[in-house]
Amino acid sequence: MFELLFEKFDEKIQLTDEEKQVCKSFFIPKKLRKKQYLLQEGDVCKYGAFVEKGFLRCYTTDDKGNEHMLQFAFEGWWMADQYSFLTSTPSRYNIDAMEDCELLLITRDAEENMMQTVPKLERYFRVLLQNSLIATIKRLESSLNDTAEEKYNRLLKNCPTVAERVPQHMLASAIGITPETLSRIRKQMSLRKSTS
Amino acid sequence: MFELLFEKFDEKIQLTDEEKQVCKSFFIPKKLRKKQYLLQEGDVCKYGAFVEKGFLRCYTTDDKGNEHMLQFAFEGWWMADQYSFLTSTPSRYNIDAMEDCELLLITRDAEENMMQTVPKLERYFRVLLQNSLIATIKRLESSLNDTAEEKYNRLLKNCPTVAERVPQHMLASAIGITPETLSRIRKQMSLRKSTS
Repeated sequence: MFELLFEKFDEKIQLTDEEKQVCKSFFIPKKLRKKQYLLQEGDVCKYGAFVEKGFLRCYTTDDKGNEHMLQFAFEGWWMADQYSFLTSTPSRYNIDAMEDCELLLITRDAEENMMQTVPKLERYFRVLLQNSLIATIKRLESSLNDTAEEKYNRLLKNCPTVAERVPQHMLASAIGITPETLSRIRKQMSLRKSTS
Repeated sequence: MFELLFEKFDEKIQLTDEEKQVCKSFFIPKKLRKKQYLLQEGDVCKYGAFVEKGFLRCYTTDDKGNEHMLQFAFEGWWMADQYSFLTSTPSRYNIDAMEDCELLLITRDAEENMMQTVPKLERYFRVLLQNSLIATIKRLESSLNDTAEEKYNRLLKNCPTVAERVPQHMLASAIGITPETLSRIRKQMSLRKSTS
């Protein structure tokens, strides 16, 4: 269950086998069925979730009941409403399972204790936050400046399998366009591919 | 010159005097005259700047030459175009001095080396990034959802002296409203204060 997490740790820091065993004790392994919630709007996001298997989505629901995708998290990614998680305030988001999932959950206190116990992890989480900050700034700027096609290409670049695993209307929502516009963009892109 | 920086370090981590001396060697002390640039649009943001004295502003300029404030950094705050600093890509922002400034500059490489040499600093920068991420998410959400008065109040809460130190038209720009709207809001707030 911890294979992928330790693989990710190994990319950034060097932990001994003993330290890895200590780390394990701070996580709560959790299986989610497809469509099951990890977080519901109005609740505090108590866990950071590392995805070992399956994938999650994060979205809001408007007054008319329409869902607006915010992001997806595939194998090897972390998912949380970071603002709610870090500040212990109620979340405006829902997080649920798009497929049957195997997750490793960690509370804010456990994360803090784990870093106190294994200080090397400060570096892992520092780099993680750095990437998260870059992605958030990029998303903010992209939402203001990029065309729909640029947004779609960025999504594909971040996760090449996203187009096969996520329904088209959710993909469209994630980049803030209608399913019809997305369909048109995909057609144009495949036309350009076949003629180039 | 390093008093305030070490005060900020001490709030989050415990460094020995020897470690503090080591830290000093990674920074470049820099004085800026009022209106002098630290970063100009199109350049890569090579330095993270810690403000020991004075204050900085970060802004963009549109096609018509209008300035749009993004943020200010007062004594004890850090300032950088984080995206440009972390990814070494050209910045879309300008950073200049609003008053004569005393700064401590650090490059990305020096920051990395400093953390390798004094690993306790991983924690300091991890917490700093965490706060930066919270502020960025909050700014994104606030720009979409808050009223002008809520935005103004948040600015005052973050820095109570901002209204005395920053010209009104820049304050208005920082919250995305016209100087006339800001003036009206301030009048209403002071009326409510005097009648309550």
